[in-house]
Amino acid sequence: MKVLVVGGDGYCGWATALYLSERGYEVAIVDSLVRRHWDLTLGVDTLTPIAPIRQRADRWYELTGKKIDVYIGDICDYPFVQDFMRKFPPEAIVHFGEQRSAPFSMIDREHAVMTQVNNVAGNLNLLFAIKEFNRDIHLVKLGTMGEYGQPNIDIEEGYITIQHKGREDRLPYPMQPGSFYHLSKVHDSHNIRFACKIWGLRATDLNQGVVYGVLTDETSRDELLVNRFDYDEVFGTVLNRFCLQAAVGHPLTVYGKGGQTRGFLDIRDTVRCIEIAVANPASAGEFRVFNQFTEQFNVNDLAMMVHKVGTAEGMNINVCHVENPRVEKEEHYYNARHTALPGLGLVPHLLSESLLDSLLHFAIRHKDRVNKAHIMPTVTWK
Amino acid sequence: MKVLVVGGDGYCGWATALYLSERGYEVAIVDSLVRRHWDLTLGVDTLTPIAPIRQRADRWYELTGKKIDVYIGDICDYPFVQDFMRKFPPEAIVHFGEQRSAPFSMIDREHAVMTQVNNVAGNLNLLFAIKEFNRDIHLVKLGTMGEYGQPNIDIEEGYITIQHKGREDRLPYPMQPGSFYHLSKVHDSHNIRFACKIWGLRATDLNQGVVYGVLTDETSRDELLVNRFDYDEVFGTVLNRFCLQAAVGHPLTVYGKGGQTRGFLDIRDTVRCIEIAVANPASAGEFRVFNQFTEQFNVNDLAMMVHKVGTAEGMNINVCHVENPRVEKEEHYYNARHTALPGLGLVPHLLSESLLDSLLHFAIRHKDRVNKAHIMPTVTWK
Repeated sequence: MKVLVVGGDGYCGWATALYLSERGYEVAIVDSLVRRHWDLTLGVDTLTPIAPIRQRADRWYELTGKKIDVYIGDICDYPFVQDFMRKFPPEAIVHFGEQRSAPFSMIDREHAVMTQVNNVAGNLNLLFAIKEFNRDIHLVKLGTMGEYGQPNIDIEEGYITIQHKGREDRLPYPMQPGSFYHLSKVHDSHNIRFACKIWGLRATDLNQGVVYGVLTDETSRDELLVNRFDYDEVFGTVLNRFCLQAAVGHPLTVYGKGGQTRGFLDIRDTVRCIEIAVANPASAGEFRVFNQFTEQFNVNDLAMMVHKVGTAEGMNINVCHVENPRVEKEEHYYNARHTALPGLGLVPHLLSESLLDSLLHFAIRHKDRVNKAHIMPTVTWK
Repeated sequence: MKVLVVGGDGYCGWATALYLSERGYEVAIVDSLVRRHWDLTLGVDTLTPIAPIRQRADRWYELTGKKIDVYIGDICDYPFVQDFMRKFPPEAIVHFGEQRSAPFSMIDREHAVMTQVNNVAGNLNLLFAIKEFNRDIHLVKLGTMGEYGQPNIDIEEGYITIQHKGREDRLPYPMQPGSFYHLSKVHDSHNIRFACKIWGLRATDLNQGVVYGVLTDETSRDELLVNRFDYDEVFGTVLNRFCLQAAVGHPLTVYGKGGQTRGFLDIRDTVRCIEIAVANPASAGEFRVFNQFTEQFNVNDLAMMVHKVGTAEGMNINVCHVENPRVEKEEHYYNARHTALPGLGLVPHLLSESLLDSLLHFAIRHKDRVNKAHIMPTVTWK
């Protein structure tokens, strides 16, 4: 089965491409490499030295005999999209190829507009390409749990049945995204739902939680296959950031009160969830939404867990509450359903002290590469 | 009070600019004139000959002594936005400046992407300009009733209180837009709501129904002030199209079964609704949604009304059901609240036989300008 991984040079995309390749899928990567360019413009860098994309793919081939084609270009450029669709006609497209950082989208007007135009136009191009080339292609699209915001009722998986004034309907779950980036994902979701309706396309929207961890069975096999690990204020996700902060002796930076609750998952579950979605395609015309996370934590919980594990290792860890750069609820109800993926076979890697311990050691191993100037938040929402 | 009318050369925008000017508001128009260009590219034209924008504004000044500044440029170009914001610092911005045709957005990929990028980026630029120059400026944004789609429960004004599993929250009303154009308005609404939340902006989203009619007290004052009247399949709205079809002896083109129900309003109510919104600004941080229509009709009802009035005039009118070019429900529940604007003083012009009669005669007067090749639908959703 041929699977295109758009954004296959990124944190989740690279791990997914190798995971699918290892399991016998025929994989091709599409990537513009713009994420590496954005790192350069901001002066930030992954904690881990990552090899150039073609070198990564070549090394994978040397080790496994499995070939991963690489198409370098921008999916906002439709002739490029047509070109790879002809050369590698896929049965599924896994779409990670978007600007995926909330703080990046909040830097200024240019970054906000660029994020929305880039994400919306690229995603529309993939929808039109599926319509043009083969309407049976299953689009597996990465969304985010952040599309829902933090409503005061339970979060369902994409849809909610509403009783209202004596009538009832099953409607798209109301969305309250919290950044121009998160908004772009809501725009995408609406566009995809419509394309499924009018063209009979098949799509799965994976509303992913916050991903942590770095190693998968495949990326740990060789130095040249190592995945990126972002620790900076713009691209770093919270648990990875806390582990890095502990490793370099920086206080853990809890934004505001720290009662912000979110869904989380291990990157080893990200790759498995994608495989589950690919192996169980949506029906023709179906816009299916899965909430892709395994556990809920609030930010204080995570800081305390890193504190505990690090202290047991003899580290001296402080937790500080910094002024929240975001506009968000710091104490709120949060209960989100996430039963669809386990129902299709996901057996989660729950967050454990041993995983935190190995993450801490991983961060310590690379700590000479850390630029401490990029740890404290500078991008504000207001 | 200084009011900027973005898209002030258009059907609703021009009528609104004159109406506000007549009532003592200091009005400036911003327009890229791209709508006139799109007409050229499609080979369509307004039924009514309309004067160039500066000539229109000059004539208004000659007749009334009221000056309307005109800024020609594209709001997707931010330096242009900064320029008019400095020259004409408004207290309210009325934003009509978007690609507003569903069929236009469905022509092909290019038109879909252009519609969304144009509308979303232009609207974001206005939000950032309000943030940059004066957060107290009230944004009065034209949305559409089409954002809601046709749910099987009552449509409320922007928000709905949902009881779910023993808890309750007031959430954004779930949206099910029916074209790439309608989707762009949903994207805008989400973006504006977020900007109000994080920056404390004031905004009113006017989810407008289908507008009919052509004359207002101001546009009827002089030949050079006459408003555009679109009858073609791309830009024409349904009731105006039916009157034109009757005038030229073309069967009235009901799409599909004709049970599609929508909210409608007279253009004389459009301009009054805008004034009401401008005169009663939203609070700081408030994203307020008004449903801007006065009556619900289905397409068959409208065809029968035109048939009745035309027949009384001795015209021979046929009604035909053509294959529906859209993907939409043709028989459905529809009940949408629209009490906020009447609560603020709107006294509607309800659809009457005398209005239909005058619309028919208006169409007859200009019927030599009609190109019948643009009456039948050619743009399809599938």
